[in-house]
Amino acid sequence: MAKNLTTRAEDYSKWYNELVIKADLAENSGVRGCMVIKPYGFAIWERMQAELDRMFKETGHQNAYFPLFIPKSYFSKEASHVDGFAKECAVVTHYRLKNAEDGSGVVVDEDAKLEEELIVRPTSETIIWDTYRKWVQSYRDLPLLINQWANVVRWEMRTRLFLRTTEFLWQEGHTAHATKKEALEEAEQMMHVYADFAENYMAVPVVKGTKTESERFAGALETYCIEALMQDGKALQAGTSHFLGQNFAKAFDVKFATKEGSQEYVWATSWGVSTRLMGALIMTHSDDNGLVLPPNLAPDQVVIVPIYRNDEQFDAVSEVAKKLMTELRAQGIRVKFDNRDTHKPGWKFNEYELKGVPVRIAIGPKDIEKGTVEIARRDTLQKEFISMEGVVEKVTSLMEEIQNNLFKKAINHRSEHTTEVNSYEEFKDMLKTKGGFLSAHWDGTAETEERIKNETKATIRCIPIDRKEEAGTCIFTGKPSVGRVLFAKAY
Amino acid sequence: MAKNLTTRAEDYSKWYNELVIKADLAENSGVRGCMVIKPYGFAIWERMQAELDRMFKETGHQNAYFPLFIPKSYFSKEASHVDGFAKECAVVTHYRLKNAEDGSGVVVDEDAKLEEELIVRPTSETIIWDTYRKWVQSYRDLPLLINQWANVVRWEMRTRLFLRTTEFLWQEGHTAHATKKEALEEAEQMMHVYADFAENYMAVPVVKGTKTESERFAGALETYCIEALMQDGKALQAGTSHFLGQNFAKAFDVKFATKEGSQEYVWATSWGVSTRLMGALIMTHSDDNGLVLPPNLAPDQVVIVPIYRNDEQFDAVSEVAKKLMTELRAQGIRVKFDNRDTHKPGWKFNEYELKGVPVRIAIGPKDIEKGTVEIARRDTLQKEFISMEGVVEKVTSLMEEIQNNLFKKAINHRSEHTTEVNSYEEFKDMLKTKGGFLSAHWDGTAETEERIKNETKATIRCIPIDRKEEAGTCIFTGKPSVGRVLFAKAY
Ligand SMILES: [Zn+2]
Ligand SMILES: [Zn+2]
Repeated sequence: MAKNLTTRAEDYSKWYNELVIKADLAENSGVRGCMVIKPYGFAIWERMQAELDRMFKETGHQNAYFPLFIPKSYFSKEASHVDGFAKECAVVTHYRLKNAEDGSGVVVDEDAKLEEELIVRPTSETIIWDTYRKWVQSYRDLPLLINQWANVVRWEMRTRLFLRTTEFLWQEGHTAHATKKEALEEAEQMMHVYADFAENYMAVPVVKGTKTESERFAGALETYCIEALMQDGKALQAGTSHFLGQNFAKAFDVKFATKEGSQEYVWATSWGVSTRLMGALIMTHSDDNGLVLPPNLAPDQVVIVPIYRNDEQFDAVSEVAKKLMTELRAQGIRVKFDNRDTHKPGWKFNEYELKGVPVRIAIGPKDIEKGTVEIARRDTLQKEFISMEGVVEKVTSLMEEIQNNLFKKAINHRSEHTTEVNSYEEFKDMLKTKGGFLSAHWDGTAETEERIKNETKATIRCIPIDRKEEAGTCIFTGKPSVGRVLFAKAY
Repeated sequence: MAKNLTTRAEDYSKWYNELVIKADLAENSGVRGCMVIKPYGFAIWERMQAELDRMFKETGHQNAYFPLFIPKSYFSKEASHVDGFAKECAVVTHYRLKNAEDGSGVVVDEDAKLEEELIVRPTSETIIWDTYRKWVQSYRDLPLLINQWANVVRWEMRTRLFLRTTEFLWQEGHTAHATKKEALEEAEQMMHVYADFAENYMAVPVVKGTKTESERFAGALETYCIEALMQDGKALQAGTSHFLGQNFAKAFDVKFATKEGSQEYVWATSWGVSTRLMGALIMTHSDDNGLVLPPNLAPDQVVIVPIYRNDEQFDAVSEVAKKLMTELRAQGIRVKFDNRDTHKPGWKFNEYELKGVPVRIAIGPKDIEKGTVEIARRDTLQKEFISMEGVVEKVTSLMEEIQNNLFKKAINHRSEHTTEVNSYEEFKDMLKTKGGFLSAHWDGTAETEERIKNETKATIRCIPIDRKEEAGTCIFTGKPSVGRVLFAKAY
């Protein structure tokens, strides 16, 4: 099977689009901007969900489910939120169709017009805080630590599979606290949870930081984020966690009785990651041969391909393969034995390379004679023969080795593409020639940020939480600055 | 904590509504007909999902995700489907809001009217078969065995928590096959999977059967179903699996090349269960004291409540409780230790009774002296003192005992409420006095079915797959019949 994949050097964006389709991850649907997540892509997303869900539960959160629809009036209640979210969204205006009188199909029944339009949730703060009002009376009811896995819709004019789609899948955490301190700690904690997940499961290094005021979530007083760097030198925001202050509590009148008996507004956070993570995963590790998956998230970590010319050989090879499969599974490794007789080994090799399976094992009659198997790593494309007795141990250690290698490669790439720049000339030069993260001094004003963005398309990705204090001067205005921020062009 | 729960005898329907609210399972939201599934209710649903998902995967299915929205024109493509589904549904007509000129809030932007309206999926056959056309070329691409977990919307005028809501959560399997035989086997298999799940996890006995033509899913040639009987003698359809023939393949032009090279239409099935199962679970087992949960689905299978008067006693009791918790967890039992000092033991006892936790363990200073604990079963409300050494064994065996006891009780209730009737007089009498399943001869015509329904509100729930052949005469028309069918009033 020839892959015919555009290379990254030729056209990075085309390479990505082709890869998503050819590796059977997702495709566009008949509905503008909405994708179909195919079984292979969804299996990766399911693994992401399972790990994140476990991490959320380990930090004390519970899942719940809130309505898909939000009454239009809810959006008007929180002033800054309405500007951010109540704009490009799907509006339900009617609740019935009827047969067209001319027999041409179905038409909207104008008699079934809703009194108040319903918005398909772009995010659920409003409907959830409308609910929390009923759940919170006393300090004893706090904190509320709730998450929901859901689909959301934001009408997008230009869409790309996983990266920006009209409908996408995500989780949204919404917590309520008695104190500002607790809410801030929660928001910060979830940034760390996201970073742990990105680095240890996705093998994607991320910078933890806070957003500038103009890049914050609509309604947030502070937005924590994790920022990743793709192979083309563009940044990708991989997760955000917001400290919402008392804005939503005030908008939806959520108060609680303190221990001392006074009435106070509740403090809020919200945090989310979405199927956009799939885009980050694909773009961080994959190469011109196709997808490269970290073992911790690969639906199949190992695939065994039998080599044979006749039934007798197939039987002999199958016996060895099945025994090996059993042994590997006993070690908790996800193994697939591809015994389809509809495709040749070479076709299968290509297929699993394209699909990023971390380890491929080939077993043929000669291997059985010699007591060996051939093991191929997807990340380095290296192959070697291993004696049968050593296979389980080898594969087990490869799982960790490949996971670590991918992370190290990504870290190295990011280091190479993170540059301290000290003048606006240098900034523009680097942005053009090398891209990546540009660490630069900024005067802290939204105006400067906006002007740099307009002139270069680079935005402030974050103010890193671990940045060192360093006096300097803004690259754009020359005004004083207390530390560097990270600029980049971004997805 | 006084429960103030209406009894089943007083008002069954009111009892159900109160129980759902008081046991913290779900509540109505600010959006008409849409519910909020609260963390405790959602935790039960998550357990249902986990078991079903495992069963689907064990039978070879994979998960995927298809768009929330369906273009209106898709509904017109399958003639019988349009009448069944393209009617009471949420219609998206616009994709933007804007600030009202008078500053009163946000209004629909009339400039952002969709060319073709989008329907929020009431079920996904149309969008999925539109996709399958691209996935199926040859017999090698078949079967497609795909499931999706999703939210769906059907506009309902009268809603009840879990039983009938405008938005609900479900799974929908959609499979494509090369032959009629294979598709029929798949549809039948999934009915058995659903029945296994209902009986072995929910402890809800079900009758497996097929629907009469008039009760079939819109677009199906055969609908398999499982039917349960609630405590009030009304039936509840707990799951359906449809053999769709080639209807959707023809509507969406999905053909495949056979091994021999000819082009044929693909054969289809679809099958689903929803959050309605929560209603079935609640109504089958619960009593006037609250929820009763089968151990296999209870989020907490055991709760340990400490009894103490001072800190010293609390410390001593906690030590014992924690040790016991560790031992029980090592057996795979889900245990919660409720050490909140904000509520008294009596309040907690009531709370866990209301929430249906299968086993409650109380430990006090006297127990420590005597080396015992008090164990209370939720299903029988029996309490007994058990020596500390025997607790783990006792609780482990109670898990199975309670699960079996609930199933047996439900089986007995169903037997008592299943009656063979041989005349229309008897039929109407029984329906009024005893309710339940009425097993009766029917002449096989839609007309008779319709007339009985209009006169009595009883419908044919199913033609049981294991019914014995028995010549008889229709209770309504006296015409010949080859076997009995099950009638009941239904949810
Ligand atoms: Zn590079
Ligand atoms: Zn009864």
